Amino acid sequence: MFFHKQELQFKASPSKPDPVYAKRMQEILGGQYGEITVAMQYGFQAWNSHLPGKYRDLLFGIGAEEFGHVEMIATMIAQLLESAPVEQSEAAMKADPVLAAVVGGTDIQAAIVAGAGVRPVDSNGNPWSGSYITSSGNLLADVIANANAEMQGRIQVARIFNMTDDHGVRDMLSFLLARDTGHQNQWEAAAKELQAEKIEVLPIPSNFPLSKEMQAEEYKFINFSDGAAAKDGSWASGPTPDGRGEFSYEEAPSKGVPFPKPTIPDERFYGTTPVPNVVEKAAGAVKDKLSKK
Amino acid sequence: MFFHKQELQFKASPSKPDPVYAKRMQEILGGQYGEITVAMQYGFQAWNSHLPGKYRDLLFGIGAEEFGHVEMIATMIAQLLESAPVEQSEAAMKADPVLAAVVGGTDIQAAIVAGAGVRPVDSNGNPWSGSYITSSGNLLADVIANANAEMQGRIQVARIFNMTDDHGVRDMLSFLLARDTGHQNQWEAAAKELQAEKIEVLPIPSNFPLSKEMQAEEYKFINFSDGAAAKDGSWASGPTPDGRGEFSYEEAPSKGVPFPKPTIPDERFYGTTPVPNVVEKAAGAVKDKLSKK
Amino acid sequence: MFFHKQELQFKASPSKPDPVYAKRMQEILGGQYGEITVAMQYGFQAWNSHLPGKYRDLLFGIGAEEFGHVEMIATMIAQLLESAPVEQSEAAMKADPVLAAVVGGTDIQAAIVAGAGVRPVDSNGNPWSGSYITSSGNLLADVIANANAEMQGRIQVARIFNMTDDHGVRDMLSFLLARDTGHQNQWEAAAKELQAEKIEVLPIPSNFPLSKEMQAEEYKFINFSDGAAAKDGSWASGPTPDGRGEFSYEEAPSKGVPFPKPTIPDERFYGTTPVPNVVEKAAGAVKDKLSKK
Amino acid sequence: MFFHKQELQFKASPSKPDPVYAKRMQEILGGQYGEITVAMQYGFQAWNSHLPGKYRDLLFGIGAEEFGHVEMIATMIAQLLESAPVEQSEAAMKADPVLAAVVGGTDIQAAIVAGAGVRPVDSNGNPWSGSYITSSGNLLADVIANANAEMQGRIQVARIFNMTDDHGVRDMLSFLLARDTGHQNQWEAAAKELQAEKIEVLPIPSNFPLSKEMQAEEYKFINFSDGAAAKDGSWASGPTPDGRGEFSYEEAPSKGVPFPKPTIPDERFYGTTPVPNVVEKAAGAVKDKLSKK
Amino acid sequence: MFFHKQELQFKASPSKPDPVYAKRMQEILGGQYGEITVAMQYGFQAWNSHLPGKYRDLLFGIGAEEFGHVEMIATMIAQLLESAPVEQSEAAMKADPVLAAVVGGTDIQAAIVAGAGVRPVDSNGNPWSGSYITSSGNLLADVIANANAEMQGRIQVARIFNMTDDHGVRDMLSFLLARDTGHQNQWEAAAKELQAEKIEVLPIPSNFPLSKEMQAEEYKFINFSDGAAAKDGSWASGPTPDGRGEFSYEEAPSKGVPFPKPTIPDERFYGTTPVPNVVEKAAGAVKDKLSKK
Amino acid sequence: MFFHKQELQFKASPSKPDPVYAKRMQEILGGQYGEITVAMQYGFQAWNSHLPGKYRDLLFGIGAEEFGHVEMIATMIAQLLESAPVEQSEAAMKADPVLAAVVGGTDIQAAIVAGAGVRPVDSNGNPWSGSYITSSGNLLADVIANANAEMQGRIQVARIFNMTDDHGVRDMLSFLLARDTGHQNQWEAAAKELQAEKIEVLPIPSNFPLSKEMQAEEYKFINFSDGAAAKDGSWASGPTPDGRGEFSYEEAPSKGVPFPKPTIPDERFYGTTPVPNVVEKAAGAVKDKLSKK
Repeated sequence: MFFHKQELQFKASPSKPDPVYAKRMQEILGGQYGEITVAMQYGFQAWNSHLPGKYRDLLFGIGAEEFGHVEMIATMIAQLLESAPVEQSEAAMKADPVLAAVVGGTDIQAAIVAGAGVRPVDSNGNPWSGSYITSSGNLLADVIANANAEMQGRIQVARIFNMTDDHGVRDMLSFLLARDTGHQNQWEAAAKELQAEKIEVLPIPSNFPLSKEMQAEEYKFINFSDGAAAKDGSWASGPTPDGRGEFSYEEAPSKGVPFPKPTIPDERFYGTTPVPNVVEKAAGAVKDKLSKK
Repeated sequence: MFFHKQELQFKASPSKPDPVYAKRMQEILGGQYGEITVAMQYGFQAWNSHLPGKYRDLLFGIGAEEFGHVEMIATMIAQLLESAPVEQSEAAMKADPVLAAVVGGTDIQAAIVAGAGVRPVDSNGNPWSGSYITSSGNLLADVIANANAEMQGRIQVARIFNMTDDHGVRDMLSFLLARDTGHQNQWEAAAKELQAEKIEVLPIPSNFPLSKEMQAEEYKFINFSDGAAAKDGSWASGPTPDGRGEFSYEEAPSKGVPFPKPTIPDERFYGTTPVPNVVEKAAGAVKDKLSKK
Repeated sequence: MFFHKQELQFKASPSKPDPVYAKRMQEILGGQYGEITVAMQYGFQAWNSHLPGKYRDLLFGIGAEEFGHVEMIATMIAQLLESAPVEQSEAAMKADPVLAAVVGGTDIQAAIVAGAGVRPVDSNGNPWSGSYITSSGNLLADVIANANAEMQGRIQVARIFNMTDDHGVRDMLSFLLARDTGHQNQWEAAAKELQAEKIEVLPIPSNFPLSKEMQAEEYKFINFSDGAAAKDGSWASGPTPDGRGEFSYEEAPSKGVPFPKPTIPDERFYGTTPVPNVVEKAAGAVKDKLSKK
Repeated sequence: MFFHKQELQFKASPSKPDPVYAKRMQEILGGQYGEITVAMQYGFQAWNSHLPGKYRDLLFGIGAEEFGHVEMIATMIAQLLESAPVEQSEAAMKADPVLAAVVGGTDIQAAIVAGAGVRPVDSNGNPWSGSYITSSGNLLADVIANANAEMQGRIQVARIFNMTDDHGVRDMLSFLLARDTGHQNQWEAAAKELQAEKIEVLPIPSNFPLSKEMQAEEYKFINFSDGAAAKDGSWASGPTPDGRGEFSYEEAPSKGVPFPKPTIPDERFYGTTPVPNVVEKAAGAVKDKLSKK
Repeated sequence: MFFHKQELQFKASPSKPDPVYAKRMQEILGGQYGEITVAMQYGFQAWNSHLPGKYRDLLFGIGAEEFGHVEMIATMIAQLLESAPVEQSEAAMKADPVLAAVVGGTDIQAAIVAGAGVRPVDSNGNPWSGSYITSSGNLLADVIANANAEMQGRIQVARIFNMTDDHGVRDMLSFLLARDTGHQNQWEAAAKELQAEKIEVLPIPSNFPLSKEMQAEEYKFINFSDGAAAKDGSWASGPTPDGRGEFSYEEAPSKGVPFPKPTIPDERFYGTTPVPNVVEKAAGAVKDKLSKK
Repeated sequence: MFFHKQELQFKASPSKPDPVYAKRMQEILGGQYGEITVAMQYGFQAWNSHLPGKYRDLLFGIGAEEFGHVEMIATMIAQLLESAPVEQSEAAMKADPVLAAVVGGTDIQAAIVAGAGVRPVDSNGNPWSGSYITSSGNLLADVIANANAEMQGRIQVARIFNMTDDHGVRDMLSFLLARDTGHQNQWEAAAKELQAEKIEVLPIPSNFPLSKEMQAEEYKFINFSDGAAAKDGSWASGPTPDGRGEFSYEEAPSKGVPFPKPTIPDERFYGTTPVPNVVEKAAGAVKDKLSKK
């Protein structure tokens, strides 16, 4: 169950409205790595969790905080939009360069669809999509996916921090950046703990029988490009992070195997097949004329 | 530049066609974490790379291999579809339970759209989307995103490995699982090397001035749910993985701040605003009637 | 702020797993009118609200309940999936009609992507989209949109109620149907109250100056089809629901106005324009040959 | 059958081109509540209608008018785009603030893709989607969905009316606003008539046996937020709009039920399951080494 | 303007319901090349037409017919769905193989969302998208796009013709196949006529000054793969279809040019840049600590 | 297999950065007819090919070149973005008209998501979609689809050529235009050769038995609009391009057939059905009260 309180975790008001900046901020709300993504991702991982206890509590504990961040940013964007301009014609823009600057940078749908309101979309107006989240049921893979989401998310918050001088906005972003730093570390800590407790280790999924994979092919770095420096990395020689092997380097792929023969599906798919079939078809056409079915 | 050779890195032919299984295999071709995703992701990261040398060579080197994996899986799926049935009516399915079993499990568009062919879609028929890839320009974040993609991808390959007994299919998957093991390790190695070389460290992005974030809020685990075990993890006490601090645990959020005042945008957005405005509107309506503009 | 409690508002466990039915239930979770839609819709309306007080409290009060319904249904689906089958080949399906029945009716991505888990998608596997919600800033329009969502949602729940005999599932749906009945009524009550309080009335938006619309065209029913019974409805004669006019009936549209002249944009868009331009182009081609720029 | 006449229901030409405004107008053509949506929605409802006669005639009669509105707006937008600028580089924009104003506000794809032409997209360039329409087969629910669509649509037309001073554009919008007023009223009238004729009543669907829902839970307003004013509305006490009960108010949800036990699906999904399973896995790994399958 | 008549161009009723087949037929209604696509494509091309007269009349004349085909197929699908089953649980499917066959092959949303009704989606349930249509303003390119659409469309109709034995369905498809044959030919005829009248010729767009393209590179076939037979086609030697040149064959690309230097954007994007920048960053970090801004 | 070389087929560097223009160029990379589309389309056609030899070699040969064009354009866009501005607030834009011009024309996500990098999206920020490609298995249809793609693609390149004066950009576009000219001609040549070799002819698919289509309806041009000039085209009289018939002209459709009876699905879909059913429902409601199940 979720309960709501008409309070915010941290102040979320700009010093003054800025509909141009509002559009930028939509990215960290409704983008691929925005707050809706992390809130939903941690929620679905918790609901799919097969393991009760501290890890699921971690997912629920941070997940619910993220729903509150959705609200903080949504509230901030609504305030940034308070002065969104109505007039949006070419004539008005030509007459007033200041208006032109603003109109060119605002989200049209924030005005027309939401009446100067926030929407579940990214900074280009693409609606948030359920395909953004990751929840595989494998806990180590998923907490690494969470660390990944927090990293990309923090990069984006850092970028938009520099896009404004507004103190109110920067204060809230300062707060969110700190929380992202914490969450980034917390998912990393969880990843380490899962491995330390041998619940799951690299390579993920670790309980897939390694005997079933072609072990000779595991730790080669095969260079399919011509950048020779690729062999200088720790990924091309030395022990592998999963502690099971040694990397090796192949400058280029070895000779491959020939292509399989082309497929010839049922002729009623009307694909283009080799000549014999054409002959058959010709025969069929004759037969066809003789006895119309 | 890309060059193509009419060879495959590894044999990609099933023992016999299986259009039901073909639909499952679409996931690792055109799904969120399928081969199209990793091929394109590594490509875009390389094209966006600001750093020449071994890391970019790594991206190009693996990226081009992945385009070849797209081809291997596509070729396999086309062969699995070779016996895709044409007849798909209720009557036919009722008459023949075996046909029913097959038709109920195949991808309709593989038949109708592609003539028993492979398509750039996932196992539910959703088309591949450019929104699946990650390329931020921050190399450490991006190689972690790559490790994440390989982990989720390997989980999916492992799952579909168990969905069939076909030796041809299992051979190819064995090969791909091994390559995924390798790539998973290689991105992990690269992540470690980037940190060892101090090019980038946690928290990402590390060159954002920490002074600009609200440092008091960084390392708290604040529990927004009531799962008490969350405090037992290494994310709730002890040193943080970035080496900069100590985690602390808060059982619940402290009191928040009040909601900001609702916004009142331009009345020509026809939103619902507080009473004074209603009075104004009423007055306006009168004025409106008196002098139609 | 949102707080989470590891409890459910109502019991959400099936009598036994049923991965076929799980796929059906995804519709009321991640579909156009599923619980994610209403939870997000009421949230965004509250965040965009320009009017503090009872209406916003209503939005927050029901909105947070809906996030809990997301959780209840997600939890139910995860349990329904507990027995999701791994084996999904044609051979296995042909060998075992019972397996075939199940595999043909389950969501492939629930297995491959989520490891027998729930996902933010509809019953056909389309990911939930931010474009499903409505939040215009006009409160009367939005509560009617909410009533609409509850009506469509309740129809869908009623339909899937009949798709199973499982007592655990039916109990939860009984509970949800009752809540939907309540919410449907509550949004209707709110719509009436807004009108009674003259905050907003029909036609919406009521504060758009009616003098600015072509009043002669307002209340005609113009029949663009040939179904003569259309004139027998209360929409074709008698007083209009907004109390401002009388409907009239026109059997067919009156004669229209001629099409405007085709446009002729800049020739560097290389569109196909009338003949004179072709002549110009010919001349241009000659000039082009003479003086290559 | 549809027939086309090269006439427009009302004049649809701007006083002068305005490619900036053209982008705004795309919303009422190809947006969630644009004319394509209502034309298709009424069409699909008619094709799905189970009831011949006046209601279906109503759907066809208005539906075909809306296809004509699609044409009017499309024609208007094409004319607004007639002066769309070709030059779109930074240098050109820096050199000419007027050009910059225009380019910043126009739809790039209208130029590059359509050669200064109209497209089936919204004002942010998202393509129209079949997921925008509602057609449930339940007539009362669907005419309320239609009223909802006309309300949101009329709000958007009213908003863009104020975004320009062009007399040609405003004339057409005046006409459309009037038609929207009429249609909004007509769907309301139909909703009342359906209820008066007892074909369908609240709660929708009315022919679902109420005995099958948990009647004790129907008319409670349960406040999941802390806004106390929510109890002051007509939705928290007094008779319910469906005439079947009385609302009651609960300040907060009562205690819930415990979470169900986590699921443990087949281990070949490689999810993370409780410890015993880990032990099993370890055993399995040993067995695995001993006898490679 | 569009007018509707409650008649169909051709009979559209199945001999008996078949909800399995209904799902297949959705492809030719709401798929990439379904009737909604061609109806909308010809409409948008006509509305964007810069040339009044026979070509625009052609677009309008066929376009309106296609809206009628949308209706015919929609009506057919609704009838095919008349016996769509309600019961959809695993237990029911296991108990009744016939039901299982049907349920596994039907569209779930047709049942749950539309109440056994037709929807604007393809055979996998993806909603129709505005991104399917082509309308460039260049008439020759667009009529070739139309021929392309009719070809792909007719292939799909031919495929689903073979998927059923129902006489009612086959009759309607026979009719549609004939109309597709006609339209395919008509767009071809239009393409020839446009070229004969010199309104537009190959290469499209023909009025782009050829002097501005790198003429030395125009007619080479450069083989980026190793299939030597590619040189045997008429595309590798002999005159070019546009009548302007001769094809030549290059067995492989000539040596390319070096990659450009990596970009180094503003450091506030926190991308990973070469070492000097790292030094700068280190210095910045020190400065940062000294004077927190 | 694909191999990569760190070279470009042709120089791809702008004279100077231009983030405004970068956004325009995204169309020819990630748009409906951008380079990702053609690269993937030719690849999937080759993988689906049923016919080994020159046609498949043609597909592979051009397909791999197109992957290189993806890289060239991606590299160009990354360089155009090198000077992408960070500051994006209203205040900054109001203060500096030059900045405003730039910010209003750039892709926000290029900055926030990719750190001034290129992304797999179109010029409006819509992600590339697998639904853009065509691969039917019918070779003649598919090479015509390829010609269509090259035509629309070349139109777009020609349009953006005129949007800039930058010599570096224009040089690369000159090269691409020439290659598009060649490819357009090559697919045309292949289409002719396939027909000359009788592998496939018009109407496509030619091996569908014509006896199964309603031959009387094939070559009529039926005018569903009132544009009389439509009869003046070669599509309304004279021989048909497929050489099988003669076109005829019908000024208007002949009378159609009546609509089929509305459907009455299972009442548990809660659709609105004719009156008798309502009576039944009333009876049911009584029964319902008497014996609650």
